[in-house]
Amino acid sequence: MNTLAPGISETKTKVLRTQLESIVGAEHVLHSAADVEVVSRTNIPRRNIPSFAVYPETAEEIAEITKLANEHSVPIWPVSQGKNWGYGSKSACYPGGITLVLSRMNKIVEVNEELCYAVIEPGVSYGQLNDYLKEHHPSLWADSSGSTADASVIGNALDRGRGVTPYADHFGALCGMEVVLPNGELLRTGTGPDGDYPAWNVYKWGTGPYVDGLFSQSNFGTVVKSGIWLMPAPEKYDFFVFEYTADESRFGEFLDTFRKLIFQGVIRSYPHLANDFAMLCIVDQYPNDLLPEGRRHLSHEAMQTWKKRLGVSDWTFGCGMYGTKGEVKLHRKIAKKELSRFGEVVFVGGCEKDTLKGRMMLKAARAALRMKGKTVKLLEGLPYAIRLFQGIPTDYFVRQVYFKSHAEKPSMGDVEPARDGCGFVWIGPVVPFTASHLTKFLDEVKPLYETFEFDFFVELIIESPRSVIALFGLFYDKQNEDESARAEGLYEAIRVLSHERGYPPYRASVASSTKALDCNPVLKDTLHGIKQALDPNNILAPGRYGVDLTNQK
Amino acid sequence: MNTLAPGISETKTKVLRTQLESIVGAEHVLHSAADVEVVSRTNIPRRNIPSFAVYPETAEEIAEITKLANEHSVPIWPVSQGKNWGYGSKSACYPGGITLVLSRMNKIVEVNEELCYAVIEPGVSYGQLNDYLKEHHPSLWADSSGSTADASVIGNALDRGRGVTPYADHFGALCGMEVVLPNGELLRTGTGPDGDYPAWNVYKWGTGPYVDGLFSQSNFGTVVKSGIWLMPAPEKYDFFVFEYTADESRFGEFLDTFRKLIFQGVIRSYPHLANDFAMLCIVDQYPNDLLPEGRRHLSHEAMQTWKKRLGVSDWTFGCGMYGTKGEVKLHRKIAKKELSRFGEVVFVGGCEKDTLKGRMMLKAARAALRMKGKTVKLLEGLPYAIRLFQGIPTDYFVRQVYFKSHAEKPSMGDVEPARDGCGFVWIGPVVPFTASHLTKFLDEVKPLYETFEFDFFVELIIESPRSVIALFGLFYDKQNEDESARAEGLYEAIRVLSHERGYPPYRASVASSTKALDCNPVLKDTLHGIKQALDPNNILAPGRYGVDLTNQK
Repeated sequence: MNTLAPGISETKTKVLRTQLESIVGAEHVLHSAADVEVVSRTNIPRRNIPSFAVYPETAEEIAEITKLANEHSVPIWPVSQGKNWGYGSKSACYPGGITLVLSRMNKIVEVNEELCYAVIEPGVSYGQLNDYLKEHHPSLWADSSGSTADASVIGNALDRGRGVTPYADHFGALCGMEVVLPNGELLRTGTGPDGDYPAWNVYKWGTGPYVDGLFSQSNFGTVVKSGIWLMPAPEKYDFFVFEYTADESRFGEFLDTFRKLIFQGVIRSYPHLANDFAMLCIVDQYPNDLLPEGRRHLSHEAMQTWKKRLGVSDWTFGCGMYGTKGEVKLHRKIAKKELSRFGEVVFVGGCEKDTLKGRMMLKAARAALRMKGKTVKLLEGLPYAIRLFQGIPTDYFVRQVYFKSHAEKPSMGDVEPARDGCGFVWIGPVVPFTASHLTKFLDEVKPLYETFEFDFFVELIIESPRSVIALFGLFYDKQNEDESARAEGLYEAIRVLSHERGYPPYRASVASSTKALDCNPVLKDTLHGIKQALDPNNILAPGRYGVDLTNQK
Repeated sequence: MNTLAPGISETKTKVLRTQLESIVGAEHVLHSAADVEVVSRTNIPRRNIPSFAVYPETAEEIAEITKLANEHSVPIWPVSQGKNWGYGSKSACYPGGITLVLSRMNKIVEVNEELCYAVIEPGVSYGQLNDYLKEHHPSLWADSSGSTADASVIGNALDRGRGVTPYADHFGALCGMEVVLPNGELLRTGTGPDGDYPAWNVYKWGTGPYVDGLFSQSNFGTVVKSGIWLMPAPEKYDFFVFEYTADESRFGEFLDTFRKLIFQGVIRSYPHLANDFAMLCIVDQYPNDLLPEGRRHLSHEAMQTWKKRLGVSDWTFGCGMYGTKGEVKLHRKIAKKELSRFGEVVFVGGCEKDTLKGRMMLKAARAALRMKGKTVKLLEGLPYAIRLFQGIPTDYFVRQVYFKSHAEKPSMGDVEPARDGCGFVWIGPVVPFTASHLTKFLDEVKPLYETFEFDFFVELIIESPRSVIALFGLFYDKQNEDESARAEGLYEAIRVLSHERGYPPYRASVASSTKALDCNPVLKDTLHGIKQALDPNNILAPGRYGVDLTNQK
């Protein structure tokens, strides 16, 4: 057994273990060195090993654990499912303490069909929610992130993750929370009478200050239940694939056109525009044959060769269309006309159901794409993309993170890159959605990849008509110290540049989050004041997003 | 000159006056009994008179005044324009202190056409912003509340007021704030480098906790600048009027149909469904001839007579349609088909510009409506409604508050009901948007009007597809003590009932806001902890929305 944290006695640790076991049951407290090592594995270059990983089942258990933590001055690091791969997974930003994994809290408490919302616990995964809706409430769609079906719906929303349907803003879709505060009290946000109340999950702002935002990307409370808005299934769903084939010089003009289509509501989904390398990771493994001895990343020529092998363009995205039949028909026409000026637009139909018609349409679309020179490999992901834009989660795309570290991608039920030692980090600065901001910024970041000898990976995630998350991916070999150090160097270079340019990251990794607010000292001070008020013993996830009473500056 | 507050010396008051005058200039400090009496006039039955009304011009001046307030332990009550008539206008919820009126801070700092936002100060009014956009950026629309053109854009948004266009959620449209904290420091929300930064007004959540919600309906800071999202002018705008003519028994079915149209996006504006009495206040003056001696409100029969005189239906709403030409055509067809099952749907065109075609269309629509039995009086407001749904503010509708207290409505440039002593209060509980919630609740509230002998006024303000603000209006004679007391009694009865049913008000009046959080003691405690951290001297608007360190329970 570990000690509780550096400098804390083994006796105290034993006492705490007994107490934790009496709250949640011995089988739900992990403490052996081997167990906590596995729990704390990350894809990012750093991690910290906790003393305990505890799996509570109820809000009351969390309240008791929270009170214990105050008594013993031991920090608690809550995670929902901890599948935020590439951002830190279940690792805290300090060693020792209690990692609180909420995966057993997986109740779907309510689904309201008329008002299109669900109330769920943080252990509910995208897969679970979607399966439940398909079976019991097929008129409602949930949104999913592009990551694994096992990720937590609430966890992702609180970390302000994104999806691709019209309900892509996951934090924005939360409405009405229940939170265990650092003093162990249960707070229900909103202003109704005791218990649940009718307006709790339909109106976000309540009466008085809106506080829900305090529990997002923060350490002010452990959210144990939340309402989440769901999308009513549209009358018509369609899907198209776009490939940018115009000259590079017209990319800015394309971005401005794209923005206008989103402002207009012609495009209502929030696509990810993948660069060539990002697309290749999904469909292929790393072409080591194209990497001469001594080089650490592909030359321009090697990239061109690889792209040609697979038929991949400079930029690619898939996109859902939603509305009444008439609307989708209109939007199809406008989108096709506008986007065709910059590349290929192929509508493949929204065959969500495995019907004969659906299969036929997909087959026809595939045939059309094959004629345009697309490879079978490239087209394999199409059915998954079509489903993802209906909110149906898939492990298909996230398997891309195995493309370099492993000889093959894993099978779909067995994706666990933290366990499997895949090295990657994400950083996603938010950039105003204009040609000039985006092209200049990409032109600045790309050379950083050259400097640190990595291949340039970027997905432009449409956040709204006003902003784009430029999601940069860094893939490295976790066993290779030099490469890990270069990955850290590149990450830090992008992080610093983004802040300088005024493009703050939409979320931080566990390692970088301690510095997340350094650019805004008044905000940091204000949040420390709030931390002092809500968590005077500094026991809840100290350091998460820069708020830590022991180290305020 | 008043003393500063009950129990505070005249000497101290004189010192403070000199200091305030040295900060903002003597002409911007009101202190005579006559002046502060006018400033504090309200439409609600209560008000408090301040010691000073101070009109600063810059954030720096506000910071200095805030520091002074801390030194002297004198409370500050910030208002933007203070046109929140029926909620308390410029009155604080305590006597004495400094009322800070931000009307001189009226700079439009930036307008970004590509990304559709403006950055403005709290003194900027709907009228000012709209005029500016029409002249310099006609491709952008702002949203307006249905109240006066002189109201503050930011003030209304911070109090979570509503408009009617697709950008009706005013608080939701704010992005990136500058706030003078109670310690006098200037906080810029969001996480960029010093000064404005590119992503400040395009991405709401920033990195780390989202704190902007803390400055809405609250007393944690004085917002001195904010970004606000604007709507790109749609390719096509149209407008229709709906009158409910079906049997009362089908009203629930109508509400469910209406909700579905909004979920579908066929209706993208946020109409106000006015009951007969609410509509009559707009178009007519109170029919004293129908009120026999001894009665204080109209009998059912008298209401029917009044309705017939004007041609008013049980429920009426106007509604904007927005989109590409094709979309509006489609939506028109669907809306007409669905709503015609319950009443008359008349499209009158969106003649925003005073063109020949616009005038002809309006004339034709008027003629059609006249043929359906509508009076000239009823149709007078049509051009204003058509403009309001384009975000163009008007004093036309708010003149309704003069319908009972005055013989005539004032001319449009001279609407100032607080000055003019019109007695009215609004209370708007948020109700889930279902037939069963809404009809049951209306059936409970209506008898309260009977009990307190008032005429039943309600507007169902569509908040989202998931909720409706049931805005109840109480009109009473401010000179009549009995009627004022009955108005207070009815207000309190509705307030208590709403909380019991779990329908919290979307905003509180200055008088009731001290009790706004009593239903949620844990939230109240949490907010008091934050107040202690940010404003230990309790100088900023103590009591606003129930947060007051001297009286925590």
